[in-house]
Amino acid sequence: MRAMANFGFSRLTVVAPFEAHWREAQSAIGAESLLQNAKRTERLEQAIADCTLVIGTGTLAHRKAEQPVVPLPELGGRIISELARGGRVALVFGSEKRGLTREDLSYCHLLAVIPTDPQQPSMNLGQAVAVCLYELAGRSGTHPSDKNKDVARVGHLEIGSERTAKTDPSPVTSGELDRLAGVIEEVMIQAGYSPLEMQSANRHDLRLLLRRLEMNGADARRTLGLFRRALHKLKR
Amino acid sequence: MRAMANFGFSRLTVVAPFEAHWREAQSAIGAESLLQNAKRTERLEQAIADCTLVIGTGTLAHRKAEQPVVPLPELGGRIISELARGGRVALVFGSEKRGLTREDLSYCHLLAVIPTDPQQPSMNLGQAVAVCLYELAGRSGTHPSDKNKDVARVGHLEIGSERTAKTDPSPVTSGELDRLAGVIEEVMIQAGYSPLEMQSANRHDLRLLLRRLEMNGADARRTLGLFRRALHKLKR
Repeated sequence: MRAMANFGFSRLTVVAPFEAHWREAQSAIGAESLLQNAKRTERLEQAIADCTLVIGTGTLAHRKAEQPVVPLPELGGRIISELARGGRVALVFGSEKRGLTREDLSYCHLLAVIPTDPQQPSMNLGQAVAVCLYELAGRSGTHPSDKNKDVARVGHLEIGSERTAKTDPSPVTSGELDRLAGVIEEVMIQAGYSPLEMQSANRHDLRLLLRRLEMNGADARRTLGLFRRALHKLKR
Repeated sequence: MRAMANFGFSRLTVVAPFEAHWREAQSAIGAESLLQNAKRTERLEQAIADCTLVIGTGTLAHRKAEQPVVPLPELGGRIISELARGGRVALVFGSEKRGLTREDLSYCHLLAVIPTDPQQPSMNLGQAVAVCLYELAGRSGTHPSDKNKDVARVGHLEIGSERTAKTDPSPVTSGELDRLAGVIEEVMIQAGYSPLEMQSANRHDLRLLLRRLEMNGADARRTLGLFRRALHKLKR
């Protein structure tokens, strides 16, 4: 929260917080308005449903990434182009102890990695957040100290704002991809492609695949129409 | 400590820690070797006595800086040149609550400032450390992820290592400047330049002046000789 305020970010969503801690934090005297205004969801996919570029954070110490890996210093450019085409960007952090799970990461288009010493790669959560936001505030031209305040303002508004431009091709949100994935999964089941014991693995791979394709909104709608049609036929 | 390990820094000196906390931290099970090997001094000037470039950290929210201010993203170049001429660099952080005092800052050649939102400029200490070390590890070519491991290694060794090159002009250490300041102050007193009620203010200004001059080692030794001579005469 403090790091977000330091670097001019304001929209926070907390996923499945531990109830007692969450209430205590929100009702604490002097709790910052960021915390008071924070949204809360039960699942990650709800938190990022309206985002078009979802960036996970973590180290590669204990796993192989299933999506493209971008070193933090190179992330700014990717975010700027996403905002320029009217997209909405989410940066996702895992818990202090475990980081993001493999399932969490399957909702991410990219994995951002902070270059750290291989002997001690795992950062404290608050420090990782501070480093990421420092980097993004500086590189994306939204730096609080920038003389060009307009650029700063537009950048900030757009990170996490309602989509501002109906550009074509419009980016596709995480929620739209999830709806598409749901229909495709039903088709897979109805078509006998996905036996019961494979459904969870197939769901995981499908989620990653849909993000890798970088569809635009029109692609996604067309694909959804096709699979709905197929599903309808299959069910008759 | 964690951020230092994450970004490959290893030399820590703690100034006047609260005794009970310090012992507890050092004897804690699993206390990292960084903490075990940390030095401890009673005063800041002892901690930085062998450093040739002392960089304070903080915000400009509540004060006017008395030394040059460098935004953190521009600090890397300054540090590289200092290391290249055989210098030794210290980065100084204040306490969580108060930051560096005006007196602490009078020992600093530069004030490094993290560009933050004017509405919430003050960072959490651990987060400020992480952001500074992330920036320095990346910009100074000592990044853990750099392919050129030699550069990384040399850079790391030199930050805080014994002076490695007897280059000419050699940089002057903070301790040498303090000794010089001590003799000059005695001369001021003996010459009747500095009345009692002005001695503290004059000492402060002198400390800043000597750092602003960017003397090399030879300059400092020559100046020290001159003032010692003058003092000797004045005392007779």
